[in-house]
Amino acid sequence: MTATRVVAFGGGHGLSASLRALRRCAPELDLDITAVVTVGDDGGSSGRLRAERGGLPPGDLRQALVALAGDHPATRRSAGLFQHRFAEVPPSYAGGAPPTGGSADGLAGHAVGNLVLCGLMELLGDPVAALEHAGAMLGAVGRVLPMSCEPVGIEARVRGADPSRPDEVRTLSGQHQVAVTTGRVESLRLTPTAPRACPQAVAAIGAAEWLIFGPGSWYTSVLPHLLVPELAAAIVASPARRLVTLNLAAEKETLGLSLADHLAALSWYLPELKVDHVVADSKAVGDPEPVGRAAESLGARLVLAPVAVTDGTPRHDPAALGAALVPVLGADR
Amino acid sequence: MTATRVVAFGGGHGLSASLRALRRCAPELDLDITAVVTVGDDGGSSGRLRAERGGLPPGDLRQALVALAGDHPATRRSAGLFQHRFAEVPPSYAGGAPPTGGSADGLAGHAVGNLVLCGLMELLGDPVAALEHAGAMLGAVGRVLPMSCEPVGIEARVRGADPSRPDEVRTLSGQHQVAVTTGRVESLRLTPTAPRACPQAVAAIGAAEWLIFGPGSWYTSVLPHLLVPELAAAIVASPARRLVTLNLAAEKETLGLSLADHLAALSWYLPELKVDHVVADSKAVGDPEPVGRAAESLGARLVLAPVAVTDGTPRHDPAALGAALVPVLGADR
Repeated sequence: MTATRVVAFGGGHGLSASLRALRRCAPELDLDITAVVTVGDDGGSSGRLRAERGGLPPGDLRQALVALAGDHPATRRSAGLFQHRFAEVPPSYAGGAPPTGGSADGLAGHAVGNLVLCGLMELLGDPVAALEHAGAMLGAVGRVLPMSCEPVGIEARVRGADPSRPDEVRTLSGQHQVAVTTGRVESLRLTPTAPRACPQAVAAIGAAEWLIFGPGSWYTSVLPHLLVPELAAAIVASPARRLVTLNLAAEKETLGLSLADHLAALSWYLPELKVDHVVADSKAVGDPEPVGRAAESLGARLVLAPVAVTDGTPRHDPAALGAALVPVLGADR
Repeated sequence: MTATRVVAFGGGHGLSASLRALRRCAPELDLDITAVVTVGDDGGSSGRLRAERGGLPPGDLRQALVALAGDHPATRRSAGLFQHRFAEVPPSYAGGAPPTGGSADGLAGHAVGNLVLCGLMELLGDPVAALEHAGAMLGAVGRVLPMSCEPVGIEARVRGADPSRPDEVRTLSGQHQVAVTTGRVESLRLTPTAPRACPQAVAAIGAAEWLIFGPGSWYTSVLPHLLVPELAAAIVASPARRLVTLNLAAEKETLGLSLADHLAALSWYLPELKVDHVVADSKAVGDPEPVGRAAESLGARLVLAPVAVTDGTPRHDPAALGAALVPVLGADR
């Protein structure tokens, strides 16, 4: 029997949780995992590299790679290296003399893996080859692809972006600005408005048995894929079953957005999207009625399960999410 | 039969040539290679990292690792990544949009491998563990150790450092300054004057069957090891046979120094040093008489062989040097 091909869409921590959950199901269900990652980041280390070096912002790609890193001690250590961030003020470390200066330099704030990805993309001239090599360095149990081989911008029309003018609608430019606004996002677009999709991502979608959306920052990590025309077309045309994992709590950018609204947003940006399963945390959902109705309108069945970590923070527990996904992904059609 | 343990001392391009030659002999002679590398660099990318981050200067360590990198396409590609240097003006690469700025940033001039080593040393707090992990990333066919786990300074008393005052003696501080001076180095020391040796390097010397010195920048890459008291003591006490590979041409720092003078400098800085073989390029040696006599005074036999590349530049050809080393290292004592 061949493996079940799963494509997970997203970016940042949400995609990371999804991938960690999927890899826990992988041995039982024989999954072949592909992550398709947003390339809109313009903040922090990624934003600096993108502005200064011109390649794809590497941070979300790095996080996806690390989520899929192999379990061998050497690959776990390499994953730790990828995540290691150069401190603003360099530490004095056991093996060396204290720094003479101690002031912030050009490395401050960069994750080593971002620099490795940036170097690989420069060296190989092809982000897909760079990610393949980085995946091999980490013994990754799956593949990471960018949604587009060109960096994209994210723009949103936001009502009340300035809290003192709650009715005014403004255009916010850049993923970072959109992610931190406390206004209400009324519409979203990419710049360029129709970026080319990564061809390998299009192919993976066409060959998949499952497409998995969320969790994650809805406007900046989950919806952008639907705005890439070739990806949207591939998603609609794919024979794969589709699963949406809902968030546990509203983030800044989605304040005021109910879980049902999250599902409605998927429909709004890709009206032809049909979904088979919506997985939500039993506790986070509260009254399941409106979410269940929103799921139904997408053609989906609502699956409630305890998928949050138990310390009260709004984070998915990869083991619990994996356990909830097994019966869904493992069921016959 | 157990492998023959070889320790090669040096730094930079010279050590790289020595290691590339040794690995070519490795299958035939079953060599177990350890490089012991200077940690005095204060120029370029390494110098910036050392000043700003406080760890060992990584450049010479990186070059030694890359020289030992495995032959598998993936490890060769990783070696290429380690050597990739971020351009001063970022390139626009095939996969990405052109950079918006295009000006030099904090990454300009850094080799990716230097950043990886710097990150690993910070993360693991131990340069030896960091080098072991980096070696595994590159599938290295040998081990790379620093001569000391603390960075050292190099200072020289130099006559005629200022060409307009040829008789004046000045103190030059820093490996870079010493390496590029066209004056005559009269004496050399480290700061601190007696740094601790890397314990694993001391152990490797004690367990070795062969110790190999040179080629390389004599004052800044070859002699510094002899100035680390515990290394000097371990070298003198080691039962290993010793081989010196001479340079092909004088460098700036050794202008006016004959090949015989190079050998005399070894004696000057470590009078108890006995040497078994001196390998020199037949052509570079010219009249073999003075070099032969200098070798004899160290207890060594002079081995002449064509070991230079054939394009006329003063670089060792790893294949030719390896071919010259095989009968020497392979001979019974």
